[in-house]
Amino acid sequence: MTTTGKQLFTTLTADGQLTLEVSEEKFPDPTGNQVLVKMEAAPINPSDLAILTSAADFENAEYSEGKVVAQMPEPFLSGQRSRHGQRLPAGNEGAGTVVATGDSDMAKALMGQRVACVPGNAFSQYAIADAMMCLPLGDHSAEAGASSFVNPMTALGFVETAKMEGHDAIVHLAAASNLGQMLNKICIEDGMKLVNIVRRQEHVDLLKSQGAKYVVNSSDDDYMSKLREAIAETGAFLGFDPIGGGQNTDHVLKAMEQVAVKQMSEYSRYGSNQDKKMYQYGRLDLQNPTILTPSYGLQWTVSGWLLTPFLAKAGMETVGKMRARVQQNLGTTFASSYKAKVDLEGMLTKEAITDYRQMKTGEKYLVTPWG
Amino acid sequence: MTTTGKQLFTTLTADGQLTLEVSEEKFPDPTGNQVLVKMEAAPINPSDLAILTSAADFENAEYSEGKVVAQMPEPFLSGQRSRHGQRLPAGNEGAGTVVATGDSDMAKALMGQRVACVPGNAFSQYAIADAMMCLPLGDHSAEAGASSFVNPMTALGFVETAKMEGHDAIVHLAAASNLGQMLNKICIEDGMKLVNIVRRQEHVDLLKSQGAKYVVNSSDDDYMSKLREAIAETGAFLGFDPIGGGQNTDHVLKAMEQVAVKQMSEYSRYGSNQDKKMYQYGRLDLQNPTILTPSYGLQWTVSGWLLTPFLAKAGMETVGKMRARVQQNLGTTFASSYKAKVDLEGMLTKEAITDYRQMKTGEKYLVTPWG
Repeated sequence: MTTTGKQLFTTLTADGQLTLEVSEEKFPDPTGNQVLVKMEAAPINPSDLAILTSAADFENAEYSEGKVVAQMPEPFLSGQRSRHGQRLPAGNEGAGTVVATGDSDMAKALMGQRVACVPGNAFSQYAIADAMMCLPLGDHSAEAGASSFVNPMTALGFVETAKMEGHDAIVHLAAASNLGQMLNKICIEDGMKLVNIVRRQEHVDLLKSQGAKYVVNSSDDDYMSKLREAIAETGAFLGFDPIGGGQNTDHVLKAMEQVAVKQMSEYSRYGSNQDKKMYQYGRLDLQNPTILTPSYGLQWTVSGWLLTPFLAKAGMETVGKMRARVQQNLGTTFASSYKAKVDLEGMLTKEAITDYRQMKTGEKYLVTPWG
Repeated sequence: MTTTGKQLFTTLTADGQLTLEVSEEKFPDPTGNQVLVKMEAAPINPSDLAILTSAADFENAEYSEGKVVAQMPEPFLSGQRSRHGQRLPAGNEGAGTVVATGDSDMAKALMGQRVACVPGNAFSQYAIADAMMCLPLGDHSAEAGASSFVNPMTALGFVETAKMEGHDAIVHLAAASNLGQMLNKICIEDGMKLVNIVRRQEHVDLLKSQGAKYVVNSSDDDYMSKLREAIAETGAFLGFDPIGGGQNTDHVLKAMEQVAVKQMSEYSRYGSNQDKKMYQYGRLDLQNPTILTPSYGLQWTVSGWLLTPFLAKAGMETVGKMRARVQQNLGTTFASSYKAKVDLEGMLTKEAITDYRQMKTGEKYLVTPWG
């Protein structure tokens, strides 16, 4: 049996030409623990945009039906040297119905079921997925289950990371995102204190309406003093920043240090001996470097945070519990919302790309590959 | 018995006035495990400059005998808010002769001996020190023993840190410094591979003459490719940077990532999964922030490194072994050299301050408080 269907590919050539293209592909029969999923819905996550759009010039790109060709500027072109010439699939996660399986019992048990999966080519009408990573969705729709891996596991991963490192409070930037709203709910459920940082008053209101106790607005004139207050009350010396560029991380470290210094009895030229740590778990801002000023001594750490190595470190048992929690609370704690739905060709219009590449809070796109 | 002698103090007031001043002080009799050391020599380390000069304007300062008053610019003035108004001693370490002791056996055993010590007010004719932290110098001169704590323990601490974190290779920036030369010798002795980064050809020659295998010059046009070669050959994915400002750390992380990506069989949008870590153990560059570009994925860490918390983490036994090693090799591995000697008043001349605050490689000052 040969299955054919449409799939999106992204190719960056050494001369800086980025081509996104929908083409008709053949999908192999699943073997062993594999299943073939007829994909029904897939979110466009920031992590997908790294290979979809990156920093290419989509303002002056060439658009045609199911295809767009744009120029990639430096240093992003050289920075992606190792993908030059490769035709890559895209789409980390999605949901659909299992239409064929390999021989394993685990795979066969999923036949006909609607599942969430992490195939790496979710922007496609079909995808081969690992049965072990499939989450049966029961009565939930594909749309409800499409984002059940990346954001939920990341938000749960932050709380696990904080616990593993001995913290009972977290600072979160860009906190009104889908992921941020999940994190807020998880922290309330788990008794983890959370300092939410947002950039707009409507996001303060949104998070407060969802029960958040500490929400500070970085656009306010008294941002730093409000942030210090929240850190002093919660004792949050661990934070997560999805923006990366600019001084977001820097300002949080500075506020943490100011709180810690205020609690010291004696001056030290080295600053406080309070450990301060910020994880960068994304790079929403690709234009600007991270700026770290010399204003918080030497007792600090800035580190990248990635889901896959975290899951490997957390171990099977913890990951299993996390997935079960997601499955049980898909309609509540882990619900996602979408601004717009597009099909594969619809992903590649100037209007859509210009909109979703901005990754605005609460404006996520959902791809429905069958229209 | 009352002991009196000259001591240096540094005071920063809230209005931005930094006063460095030599004054006649009374020193208390030592009690318990304390000893009173008649100080003979003390190095001016970068860590001392944090409270001595910081970023103050010594070009337009008011100089008089044994005193200088300079203005501290922002953001350094606010950044040191917690010391405003405090009259602080200075000088981490030094060496001298024990002239009085407390009652403890450990203290009494040091009477009359020449010791290295870490009193925190080493820029002084006398200092109270903890006998536990004193290192008997035997036949070594005070000058030979003056720098036997900060640099030797830091260099040994880097190697211990690398071992504790599972590395067998290190990258070191500003590698021709006194500390860097020590690190080179220790790494040769311990079989730890070391990539030395310097900024001048004469420093390449210096380190090579001391047996260094990998020395790259960041002023050379082919710096990045030479750095990649050295990292590929040594497998060094851990580094130490005393500069802090600018892109020194960034360039090393980028080179590490490029080496790691070259060894991957498949492209990943997240970059390599090779852990890359840079410690900043100083801040020689106070003018510029640390710049981290989005060019090495999310599998990286930049962290401050401080001697005191490291020693606490390493534990008494390890620290004891480190000190014994320093004592046994004070004339060889742990030898320091000085550009100039000044007395306490000599520290506060425009010529001296302008020179030593630059912290140029190999141009360290030694304070001899009795002239």
